[in-house]
Amino acid sequence: MRKIDPERQRAKRRQIIEAAGTCFARRGFHATTTAEICAAAGMSPGNLFHYFDSKNAIIEAIVEEERRDTAAYFAELGTAPDPFDALLGFLDVVMALAADETYSRLTLEIAAEAMRNPAIGALTAANDAETRAAIAALLRAAMTHGRVDADLDPEQAATWIAALIDGVFSRLAVDPSFAPEREKPMLRLIVSRFLSSRRPV
Amino acid sequence: MRKIDPERQRAKRRQIIEAAGTCFARRGFHATTTAEICAAAGMSPGNLFHYFDSKNAIIEAIVEEERRDTAAYFAELGTAPDPFDALLGFLDVVMALAADETYSRLTLEIAAEAMRNPAIGALTAANDAETRAAIAALLRAAMTHGRVDADLDPEQAATWIAALIDGVFSRLAVDPSFAPEREKPMLRLIVSRFLSSRRPV
Repeated sequence: MRKIDPERQRAKRRQIIEAAGTCFARRGFHATTTAEICAAAGMSPGNLFHYFDSKNAIIEAIVEEERRDTAAYFAELGTAPDPFDALLGFLDVVMALAADETYSRLTLEIAAEAMRNPAIGALTAANDAETRAAIAALLRAAMTHGRVDADLDPEQAATWIAALIDGVFSRLAVDPSFAPEREKPMLRLIVSRFLSSRRPV
Repeated sequence: MRKIDPERQRAKRRQIIEAAGTCFARRGFHATTTAEICAAAGMSPGNLFHYFDSKNAIIEAIVEEERRDTAAYFAELGTAPDPFDALLGFLDVVMALAADETYSRLTLEIAAEAMRNPAIGALTAANDAETRAAIAALLRAAMTHGRVDADLDPEQAATWIAALIDGVFSRLAVDPSFAPEREKPMLRLIVSRFLSSRRPV
């Protein structure tokens, strides 16, 4: 009997997820064949199906991995000395990810698939709720530091910051002139003005 | 020979576009069959194909109609006495459209289709560019009235307002608790603070 090495299993799964993500980003989820994923991952279909029984299972794993990465990122931000600066730093990270063509195309593919596929829809909705809760926690902390308008509802404000982030990825789909790296300061400005405690004219 | 009545032709096309839009919103563009569109429009396949030779041609007509509606709307706003108020009024209209489930689902379907179908992609990109140009024109006018921070670049600010609007529709896809009618004042607040000439802390 072959011994199972959990570390090696994880590495193989990771290798498939990476290869599949690149394929989905390049050709779209539906147009990508299992054979293409196998070729990109450098493994046989038998080997691939040992880890994932369908393309759906792979895209679910990609969304799940995104959730873990985001949770780990926000867990670290939770200990930041200045929660408002931490929030602005998060926005820079979002823009850097948006500038990564594979990441942004895969994000748009997953969003499109989430509309058609209820399982993917439920997973992305859960990720989104977790991200909003993490942003709201940063906003509450920034309010106690006096950096954010205490009259705002943290959950509602977090929802709108999430909307702005969604909007960045939509821009990439529709407007070829939108350059996320160049737009970093503008996102910081919009969110800073929105959260600032001074009332508009 | 049958006489062609252009008015009747337009009414028929309009009837098909309405019926197809409702079908696409309910079942998705790809899942909708021509037979379903015929049933919804109350006409035979032969009659339908007389007006549109494919589902693609119908979705292209929907996007084209959206372009004309938007252009007519902004042409009217161009004569508004207070361009800043006109912009805020436009945001209210966007939120009212977002609250219309058929409209918002159809918008998301078209966005997903634009990613896969280059012809639809080109049409939606052209609509988006026109909308951004119209918002930028309002912003320039509002700057001359002193209602908008003159240090902002009108085109860039318009791009970010477009991103916020995209974000509203993405929220509807991912967050069942997002209620556009209730969020109207918040979108006004965010855009007002963003455009306000006072610097953030």
